Amino acid sequence: MMDFDSRREALLAAAASVFAARGYHRTSMRDLARASGMSLAGMYYYVAGKEDLLYQLQRSAFERVRRGAEEAVAAAGRGGVGGGEGGPEERLRAFILHHVTFFATHRDEMKVLSHEAESLTGARLEEVRELKKAYVGLCDALVAELDAAAEAPAGGGGTRLNRHVAVYTLFGMMNWIYTWYDPAGPVGIAELAETICRLFLNGYAAEVHVR
Amino acid sequence: MMDFDSRREALLAAAASVFAARGYHRTSMRDLARASGMSLAGMYYYVAGKEDLLYQLQRSAFERVRRGAEEAVAAAGRGGVGGGEGGPEERLRAFILHHVTFFATHRDEMKVLSHEAESLTGARLEEVRELKKAYVGLCDALVAELDAAAEAPAGGGGTRLNRHVAVYTLFGMMNWIYTWYDPAGPVGIAELAETICRLFLNGYAAEVHVR
Repeated sequence: MMDFDSRREALLAAAASVFAARGYHRTSMRDLARASGMSLAGMYYYVAGKEDLLYQLQRSAFERVRRGAEEAVAAAGRGGVGGGEGGPEERLRAFILHHVTFFATHRDEMKVLSHEAESLTGARLEEVRELKKAYVGLCDALVAELDAAAEAPAGGGGTRLNRHVAVYTLFGMMNWIYTWYDPAGPVGIAELAETICRLFLNGYAAEVHVR
Repeated sequence: MMDFDSRREALLAAAASVFAARGYHRTSMRDLARASGMSLAGMYYYVAGKEDLLYQLQRSAFERVRRGAEEAVAAAGRGGVGGGEGGPEERLRAFILHHVTFFATHRDEMKVLSHEAESLTGARLEEVRELKKAYVGLCDALVAELDAAAEAPAGGGGTRLNRHVAVYTLFGMMNWIYTWYDPAGPVGIAELAETICRLFLNGYAAEVHVR
């Protein structure tokens, strides 16, 4: 027998797959019961209804990805598994690698987070927005550390990139993968994550250091 | 009186706004009639039904953005309005600027292209996929030109980035804007496009030239 948390996680995973395929609004509690192998009555033991299920799913995804990112960044700060430098670049690299790995292996959740971002209402919507903001803030703080570590622009010239725009652009690189990336295809997750790391770090560093 | 093409474009624009807000599957022909100010019977003069409307909308968006991109790239190749170099970097920059401007000012269409990419079926789905592939191919060819123009890696060392992954990552930077960018906010479209140009060009060039 699985315990409460495991069964709830299994229900959320089944729901992510159905919401990703059919969309939240087209999905009924009956569809979700069928997909999860639970009875309708059984499902109400875990969730208060369809919107509560979507809320729990989104909250769970943001909580897990944030916890994982914090651990990965902290490990990189201690020099990481490979014994890297532990500087700001290493920490941002750890964040990117973790995010890409998480969503390349949880594509249904990524699609639901993105397509159903506005499907919640009221307090549930607010709470998920706050979780998302905190998660984006984690990345923004890492990029700010990169800025702080960089040399001051020579002669004060040049225009710095807007950091918030750069951060959202980085999330674009990472999140868009759910529309095109196939983990079973020729490009492995490590190569994908490495490409994004190098594009962003080179691109951003070129601005921060050179201008 | 508007002519056939203008009324059809107005219908497609109204449909983009409704599909973006409610989703394709939750929208009825009656909703579309209300939003466009046409009668139900009047709509059938322009489209064969709801799926045909979504198809025409997606086809029209890809055709317009492709035509505009080809013109922008060709103009950059002739030295552009500002009299630039007309090299591969100028042409890719023109493509990025055009794409970002188009979708920052057509956010409903961007959302529909992205969220309803799989809502068409059969021959309509195939045709739109081909249009999208041709459009992505245009960008891929520009990045390939950058590669060709770059010096060969010194000593043959280093690993090149996978160009296709880089191109999809670039589309991620550009397309994700529909989830966060507000043209009425503090960041203008030109600054947004410039940030994306610089991030990608610096990031990719650092790899192509340095490695």
